[in-house]
Amino acid sequence: MSRVERLQASLEEPLLVSNLVNVRYLVGFESSNAALVVEPERVRLFSDFRYAELGRSVEGVEFVETKRSLFDALAELLEGRIGFEADHVTYARWETLGNGGLELVPRRGLVEELRAVKDEAELEAVRNAAALTSEAYARFADERFVGRTERDLAWRLEELFHELGAEAPAFETIVAAGPNGARPHARPSDREVAAGETVVIDAGAKLDGYCADCTRTFATGPLPERLSEAYEVCLEAQLTGLRAVRAGATGVEADGAARDVIDDAGFGDAFGHGLGHGVGLDVHEAPRLSRESSDTLVPDQVVTVEPGIYLEGLGGIRIEDLVIVGENGAEITTGFTKDLVSVD
Amino acid sequence: MSRVERLQASLEEPLLVSNLVNVRYLVGFESSNAALVVEPERVRLFSDFRYAELGRSVEGVEFVETKRSLFDALAELLEGRIGFEADHVTYARWETLGNGGLELVPRRGLVEELRAVKDEAELEAVRNAAALTSEAYARFADERFVGRTERDLAWRLEELFHELGAEAPAFETIVAAGPNGARPHARPSDREVAAGETVVIDAGAKLDGYCADCTRTFATGPLPERLSEAYEVCLEAQLTGLRAVRAGATGVEADGAARDVIDDAGFGDAFGHGLGHGVGLDVHEAPRLSRESSDTLVPDQVVTVEPGIYLEGLGGIRIEDLVIVGENGAEITTGFTKDLVSVD
Repeated sequence: MSRVERLQASLEEPLLVSNLVNVRYLVGFESSNAALVVEPERVRLFSDFRYAELGRSVEGVEFVETKRSLFDALAELLEGRIGFEADHVTYARWETLGNGGLELVPRRGLVEELRAVKDEAELEAVRNAAALTSEAYARFADERFVGRTERDLAWRLEELFHELGAEAPAFETIVAAGPNGARPHARPSDREVAAGETVVIDAGAKLDGYCADCTRTFATGPLPERLSEAYEVCLEAQLTGLRAVRAGATGVEADGAARDVIDDAGFGDAFGHGLGHGVGLDVHEAPRLSRESSDTLVPDQVVTVEPGIYLEGLGGIRIEDLVIVGENGAEITTGFTKDLVSVD
Repeated sequence: MSRVERLQASLEEPLLVSNLVNVRYLVGFESSNAALVVEPERVRLFSDFRYAELGRSVEGVEFVETKRSLFDALAELLEGRIGFEADHVTYARWETLGNGGLELVPRRGLVEELRAVKDEAELEAVRNAAALTSEAYARFADERFVGRTERDLAWRLEELFHELGAEAPAFETIVAAGPNGARPHARPSDREVAAGETVVIDAGAKLDGYCADCTRTFATGPLPERLSEAYEVCLEAQLTGLRAVRAGATGVEADGAARDVIDDAGFGDAFGHGLGHGVGLDVHEAPRLSRESSDTLVPDQVVTVEPGIYLEGLGGIRIEDLVIVGENGAEITTGFTKDLVSVD
């Protein structure tokens, strides 16, 4: 069954798909302004002048050229009862559609649920993006870190992604050295990397639309004992988390397996985020591995496993692999070493 | 008056600001998960563990650390009557807030209206981003185009942005050569640039958070007559559009001034988008210059002026400056030449 057919099989009423990544996933149409209306026997694709030529080339859909204000156009063109993506449509657009006389049914996660389980072509794209990312990390580890700014290092890694054929970085590269590493989502600054500290690098290449996501923590020479200890604990937590990722495990269980290791070592307060998240066309998608997750893992989902330990004023540690969920365990796609690599 | 004070002066009830760019604009806090509640005498900033250290350093706000699911937290913590950003909050989040017992008032564009008129520091940031972009175009024009792919050229321009000190590209660089140029928003492909065609380059650097946006169309040697003619018409339309941009002019009038030139030359069907849009922290913001615009220009707005002519199967032309609206005319910030530049 095609992706659209699987969606059609799950619908109770026609569905307006306006999340652009979902539109791309379902029919391969990339734009900044489009929507699909999926009905049992008919799929219409709506977009404006700028994408008309491309839209008319999409197979299996009726293309409808609209004015730029797409939701105004949809309110005029559509009628009757229709589902919409409640996690994506804004209140204002919902109001616009309702003013057009539509009977609107909020729906959640219908396409996201399909996207969470990858088909073979998608798994291959993820493996390729991850392999490219690992190779970039390997080359990066041969370079000098000390004396370069976080910003320069982030650029250099993105340059390596490009040289290796990436389409783009999958997200804004994080390079967080020394005390900055204690902020899990620090943005690269003009601070120069010093000797004897950790450098948290969180980055990924995008290839054929699919994202990789990989974090490694490097050391610029010998570390303060508390950071060395934190690295060992974080690595053990990561390996334990990996062993817990398999079909049938819940997101809560996988998260808990890694979290227990960090708690038991006395660093529990320093790991304030979830263990991982799904990755695909988006770098954050279903399922979630966290204390609040309601997901149970199934084969061919793609998730990160990324415990962290953040020590205010001192530095941070995070170690992250991107893995494919299997019946009996996880396939690691990000092969670069997780031993503590010391860089100059 | 500070930005927050100007907002406070315009409010009829407390406002929940959840658009992250608006949060940044108002209090300088950058994150991927935050909201402000602005009341007459009090401003609260809500964000999660990851940004807590940063949040506590923001002046003039009370920082409240929440769990990751921010809207669940807001539904629990807030009460009474409160405005929300209807163009930003999703239906699902609106429902979450409403289930928390809040009396919700949809509001539109309150912060965006403030952002549309730049203060001196913002104008300086825009000028700097635009000057950097122009310098990158100048260096780029000295390079060889023919035989390189659109993708390679796009990367090279972004590399020049970086070398010149840009924070990042302000948006995904467009390089559209030959027939690809007939798609106003084509993405760079692996097609190699050939001789005797146009190459539309639409790009901009981001500096200190502010975006530049500049389009130039190059020629790889002598062009087919219809394209040469279209270039001349497009340039005249652009210059006419520039002359129409001044305080007091409406978005419809500015658009119409440029559009008439293209219509009169018989290319009217080939210009399917609006003349321009505001630029600032976002690359697309208020005001709009188009046939549907309801805006009237005021001093210190920053807008693009970018007519285009798109000839299916043949190629495209677009010429775009980023300008600052003044009492008596427009200050052009993107100084690179608009004469037709021939590249090898």
